[in-house]
Amino acid sequence: MNCIIASTSTLHGSDYLAYLTEPLQDHFKNASEILFIPFARPGGITHEEYTEKAKKGLAFLNKKVVGIHEKENFKKAILEAEAIFTGGGNTFVLVSQLYTHQLIEPLQESIKNGTPYLGTSAGSNICGVNMRTTNDMPIVYPPNFNTLEVLPFNINPHYLDPDPTSTHKGETRETRIKEFHEYNATPVVGLREGSWLVVTNEDIVLKGKLKARIFQCDKTPYEIEPETSLKNLQ
Amino acid sequence: MNCIIASTSTLHGSDYLAYLTEPLQDHFKNASEILFIPFARPGGITHEEYTEKAKKGLAFLNKKVVGIHEKENFKKAILEAEAIFTGGGNTFVLVSQLYTHQLIEPLQESIKNGTPYLGTSAGSNICGVNMRTTNDMPIVYPPNFNTLEVLPFNINPHYLDPDPTSTHKGETRETRIKEFHEYNATPVVGLREGSWLVVTNEDIVLKGKLKARIFQCDKTPYEIEPETSLKNLQ
Repeated sequence: MNCIIASTSTLHGSDYLAYLTEPLQDHFKNASEILFIPFARPGGITHEEYTEKAKKGLAFLNKKVVGIHEKENFKKAILEAEAIFTGGGNTFVLVSQLYTHQLIEPLQESIKNGTPYLGTSAGSNICGVNMRTTNDMPIVYPPNFNTLEVLPFNINPHYLDPDPTSTHKGETRETRIKEFHEYNATPVVGLREGSWLVVTNEDIVLKGKLKARIFQCDKTPYEIEPETSLKNLQ
Repeated sequence: MNCIIASTSTLHGSDYLAYLTEPLQDHFKNASEILFIPFARPGGITHEEYTEKAKKGLAFLNKKVVGIHEKENFKKAILEAEAIFTGGGNTFVLVSQLYTHQLIEPLQESIKNGTPYLGTSAGSNICGVNMRTTNDMPIVYPPNFNTLEVLPFNINPHYLDPDPTSTHKGETRETRIKEFHEYNATPVVGLREGSWLVVTNEDIVLKGKLKARIFQCDKTPYEIEPETSLKNLQ
């Protein structure tokens, strides 16, 4: 396995994927073409528009970027891809599309075989055991919440610390994850914007400058430093 | 029909249900017992703990408050209830429980027959056409996202205006609802904390001091004043 699983695609005040320039140079170095999966359609933009955005964001690599919707056979495209990037947007829409086109198993197989994979936000959510810790609105009904299980845990991307000055009564992210653990035993990694995980066959390591927050069933949540291994978190 | 559909149970700095004291006095005046549906379990609290909270919050009414989990036959309890209150928490958990216990139709029937109904947050979400505009985390997988359709539209409770100072890249509520309308034609009422809808056979009226924000497919969102009728929004 060879995955970069990022909390977000974009940091405030910087360009799309800009903060990942350095790791992506290395990550995609052996690929001549990157297969882009635009199914999550952020803000409802079309597959074409989203693929344009990915092309621009990855232009610094000087690689060909092709949207999966341009391919005749989606399954074959995934199995034969030299590299895969699944962009963020709405996780319910993304997972519904993956089930509709029967792409869960091909993606698992391709990733297991070592195809370099990049996920951001929703594209990272699907690397967990299930999508039950997404922040997204359930605007469509997927046939299943189970996802790729590239990680032995779930992630919560765009992790936000509780705001002590807030007067809003909606649940904090921490409360939501606590509720998740009333019904699920899977650990959750709260991945702050600017953090990512590097997944290989040997290890899962937290990257970026920020700590991540770990939520385990019946345990007090705790922080881990960058470069910490998460391979034993399950 | 005779429903109060509230954005939240609690305003910042005030007690549970306190801001609804006056309308609830009138709403529940003919009931000697209020059936409480604690299924949404906010923060994962038990049905017993949640019912205790509801009892305290409604103590000013001097009525009996009974949790549905204390009843032998849930369906019968709903059909024979003098008044019903569904509390907030997690909409996915609430809707799963309603389907598991086959309570969607009894609730629809009871509400249609005029049983006074109070919903807050998740308990309001279920009054819409479907739960696809909930803010909650999908911690369990319901067999269906369709809900009671007491309203001809959906609500988004705890509606939050975009924060222009935010550096966080998670989607704003407005973006999420815009994404919803890529896949659904149902209008959405963004109900701010402190707002509620009063639903009768004749009308649906916005109450409270705040405006609400209306989202319709292919239209620019707009604001409506308190006391505006929403009966024609569909």
